[in-house]
Amino acid sequence: MKRHIVGVMGGGEADAEHIAAAYEVGRLIAQNGWVLLNGGRNVGVMDASARGAQEAGGLTVGILPDDHRGRASDYLDIEIITGMGSARNNINVLSSEVVIACSGGPGTISEIALALKAKRRVIILGFDVGTTFSQYAEQGRLVVVHDPEEAIHAVKELFCAKESPTQRPA
Amino acid sequence: MKRHIVGVMGGGEADAEHIAAAYEVGRLIAQNGWVLLNGGRNVGVMDASARGAQEAGGLTVGILPDDHRGRASDYLDIEIITGMGSARNNINVLSSEVVIACSGGPGTISEIALALKAKRRVIILGFDVGTTFSQYAEQGRLVVVHDPEEAIHAVKELFCAKESPTQRPA
Amino acid sequence: MKRHIVGVMGGGEADAEHIAAAYEVGRLIAQNGWVLLNGGRNVGVMDASARGAQEAGGLTVGILPDDHRGRASDYLDIEIITGMGSARNNINVLSSEVVIACSGGPGTISEIALALKAKRRVIILGFDVGTTFSQYAEQGRLVVVHDPEEAIHAVKELFCAKESPTQRPA
Amino acid sequence: MKRHIVGVMGGGEADAEHIAAAYEVGRLIAQNGWVLLNGGRNVGVMDASARGAQEAGGLTVGILPDDHRGRASDYLDIEIITGMGSARNNINVLSSEVVIACSGGPGTISEIALALKAKRRVIILGFDVGTTFSQYAEQGRLVVVHDPEEAIHAVKELFCAKESPTQRPA
Repeated sequence: MKRHIVGVMGGGEADAEHIAAAYEVGRLIAQNGWVLLNGGRNVGVMDASARGAQEAGGLTVGILPDDHRGRASDYLDIEIITGMGSARNNINVLSSEVVIACSGGPGTISEIALALKAKRRVIILGFDVGTTFSQYAEQGRLVVVHDPEEAIHAVKELFCAKESPTQRPA
Repeated sequence: MKRHIVGVMGGGEADAEHIAAAYEVGRLIAQNGWVLLNGGRNVGVMDASARGAQEAGGLTVGILPDDHRGRASDYLDIEIITGMGSARNNINVLSSEVVIACSGGPGTISEIALALKAKRRVIILGFDVGTTFSQYAEQGRLVVVHDPEEAIHAVKELFCAKESPTQRPA
Repeated sequence: MKRHIVGVMGGGEADAEHIAAAYEVGRLIAQNGWVLLNGGRNVGVMDASARGAQEAGGLTVGILPDDHRGRASDYLDIEIITGMGSARNNINVLSSEVVIACSGGPGTISEIALALKAKRRVIILGFDVGTTFSQYAEQGRLVVVHDPEEAIHAVKELFCAKESPTQRPA
Repeated sequence: MKRHIVGVMGGGEADAEHIAAAYEVGRLIAQNGWVLLNGGRNVGVMDASARGAQEAGGLTVGILPDDHRGRASDYLDIEIITGMGSARNNINVLSSEVVIACSGGPGTISEIALALKAKRRVIILGFDVGTTFSQYAEQGRLVVVHDPEEAIHAVKELFCAKESPTQRPA
């Protein structure tokens, strides 16, 4: 049986509170036996979520924008080197069964939008995204949560719904 | 001297008012001697803006998501076939010196975000994008306009600022 | 009626003979009313073919590997900025109806291979590609020519075959 | 300490002998504790190498060309969904520290070329690639081997050379 892949998106710059939340989200993803996938860089939400997952014994995958591994997080098991810059954001969301979006800038906003475009469920954690995505929240395609536990709960609900009766999406 | 490239982003689905605005924006881009670049499909804002520009004698370039030209607008002079799906959105904005975002869905929102990430100025035309991008509006990196003439005026101002003293951005 | 797009692939490093051939190919493409598309950089076969086409009044399109235009040829009308490095090679060949491959290194070899994969006809001009592609030559999917005139003749034959009875490929 | 990633490239169509070799290469990669990375599809060399590695307890990563997992191998631990078609070939080689190229068509040839372009060492296993890459063989950047054991031996030599004195490449 394949392991679920959970994407954690977020910016390279983040304050201590968001770093702590990203670390905790990573830790809980690992504890649930899921794979963590993120943008792979050694800063901000990317580095913290990978560290949280790896220190809890989880498997971590980073999709790097660069054509080299010089700025990769030290907490990745698998480094995918795309050399595509921000065009790799679409790979991040396509490869994730569900996307948790933590604090970030326009790169993270693009990932929320691309995830919705690709019909991935989006969980917004502690990130004030304004009203742009309100209609998607009303449709249940995007949900706003307030702490890592709530984010993980939303992921679990999604995976449970997916797995009964069919185990995995096409 | 190279011609300026103006990107017009917008969804495949659009109502008559937005179609008319997209057509008019395309027409004015051509009248100013600029090249129109868009997502290339034969629907919505993409098709209308290309038609407006081409019928006014302008040059039109479409960056297609598909790996074939089957869904390309008939009003393109140059079809760039990427075969990359929504990852091509980043090419759309990188290749545009300035981006005009008309009405659209999550694909268009991703292009606004990617344009800001790539330091391109964004002009929002008749598209209610909510408050997500408010901080960028405050910084002058994004401006909201209400009709095609105002959009073109904003583009002109940008190009004039760019051309004195230096003619083209690196 | 849309103009045909002819791709000219080749390396950044080329000797005087290959530079002259690339220039001449560009010139003949423009004289036939076709659009020249290449990898866009300001060196080697790319720069020479764009210069040949533009100086003969043709339209030139460059698909740049960088995320900026700093290394773009001065002889491009349209610069497509991909920020994707060598992954853009696939865009080069998908966007070309036929590919002329001049002298180059592994990048050019990858473009020949990707063009064959995408069912594009490949014309090898003055480039010793060894025997790797021999089976495709036997199938008529790849042809070796010895001067620019012969390359253009092969392109014309292909376009004539395409246009009777149908004008353009899907 | 990070695990090495070994890329195994090869076509979707392969005869029984090449399938067996791909399976064996995958098995040996896993036995050495390395991660296997390939093009991810459920056919040919891709499927066989993933099965060999996974059945030997190894970790397998597939970089899928599609925007969905419908044609993914059943023997992948991590599916990276690119939606980029053959443009993903460049990600395959950038993400691999070394590339083993088994039997294939133009897609595999493009990966050999892109790997050389990206300065990755290429090991050709049981694949008659003709003379196109002869100069790279002379430079030691490409080596031809005759069975899976020899391929693995070449990978080991490369990793040993890399690890003394420095452990990992930038």
